[in-house]
Amino acid sequence: MIKLFYSPGSCALASHIALEEAGASYEAVRIDFAAEEQLKPAFLAINPKGRVPALVTERGILTETPAILLYVAQTFPAMQLAPLADLFALAQMQATNSYLCATVHVAHAHLRRAYRWSDDAAGIESMIRKAPQNMTECFAMIEREMLKGPWVMGEAYSVADPYLFTLARWLKGYDISNAQFPKLHALMQRMAERPAVQRVMAVQQLT
Amino acid sequence: MIKLFYSPGSCALASHIALEEAGASYEAVRIDFAAEEQLKPAFLAINPKGRVPALVTERGILTETPAILLYVAQTFPAMQLAPLADLFALAQMQATNSYLCATVHVAHAHLRRAYRWSDDAAGIESMIRKAPQNMTECFAMIEREMLKGPWVMGEAYSVADPYLFTLARWLKGYDISNAQFPKLHALMQRMAERPAVQRVMAVQQLT
Repeated sequence: MIKLFYSPGSCALASHIALEEAGASYEAVRIDFAAEEQLKPAFLAINPKGRVPALVTERGILTETPAILLYVAQTFPAMQLAPLADLFALAQMQATNSYLCATVHVAHAHLRRAYRWSDDAAGIESMIRKAPQNMTECFAMIEREMLKGPWVMGEAYSVADPYLFTLARWLKGYDISNAQFPKLHALMQRMAERPAVQRVMAVQQLT
Repeated sequence: MIKLFYSPGSCALASHIALEEAGASYEAVRIDFAAEEQLKPAFLAINPKGRVPALVTERGILTETPAILLYVAQTFPAMQLAPLADLFALAQMQATNSYLCATVHVAHAHLRRAYRWSDDAAGIESMIRKAPQNMTECFAMIEREMLKGPWVMGEAYSVADPYLFTLARWLKGYDISNAQFPKLHALMQRMAERPAVQRVMAVQQLT
């Protein structure tokens, strides 16, 4: 059986929801970030990058959210979790997921993990100060240019939705209300109503 | 005809090489970053993110290198630019491309564009100081964990190769020799021998 390694509320939530939506047989294994379990040899043997998500399959281990999300969608094509037959639409979905990964997640990482890019306390502080502005600008860009509504790709739900849902949940930590982004706000409510999302939120003990 | 907007030597080089390898009919349009053309209304109408690459197709505009690379590979399946029939291998390729986009390119962006994450001159300086260490660690990780050799995915060339080639070229700007990474060093030489790469390098006037 495949195993998903996750930390509650981290970006691994997106892959967790995708697996649940797909009806996959999988085991979700919690990694304790507070105890820095992700940096210990047992986990580094699974993902040398020391990050979640990591998906252990019969063929080997997959990392990186956009890659795992597409893999889940392609492995369970009947569940229609991506526009697999429309290469342009699929590329649009991948472009959104890439933006979420390389720009939005990175913007957020400067709040909590700015030490990755600076060894200087004042430098780290300056990044923390700018993170809220960057997060607001990212979600304004998503609202204006990427989120077609009601789902990211329009009428059809896709794996871009749990990814956007996962990263938009982080806005609470900034005291940034998603009410200023009406399409995003509606998407968050629709996501919360999905049974698969509710099951995963319960497992990860998230509210 | 599709159009690729690029700036010479930027990450758009990967998509440019992929289009050339695919034998696509396309026009390459140079954007002058020195004149900040990417931030002017004419280009923002194409890519509101103000970045390259942007691929203008009959269906609309695509951005984000990992998305464009997969789109090119899927649109020209006969050219075998990705392991399209092996979903696990494809996900591994996408994971590498995602790491290149969200970790390696981001590490490099802290050298030249640290102002994205800090408004403080000393903070920016501290990021510039750490960038060489992060780039070295990224390429050590790639050499150890991702690059199977001789190509990224092993015996078969894929769109991950021009992407790795493109980002590894940036090591010169740090005075980091890729000779310390034997598989990468060999890949850079093999890439330079490919006629498609040579044609694109000539168009972008790169050496």
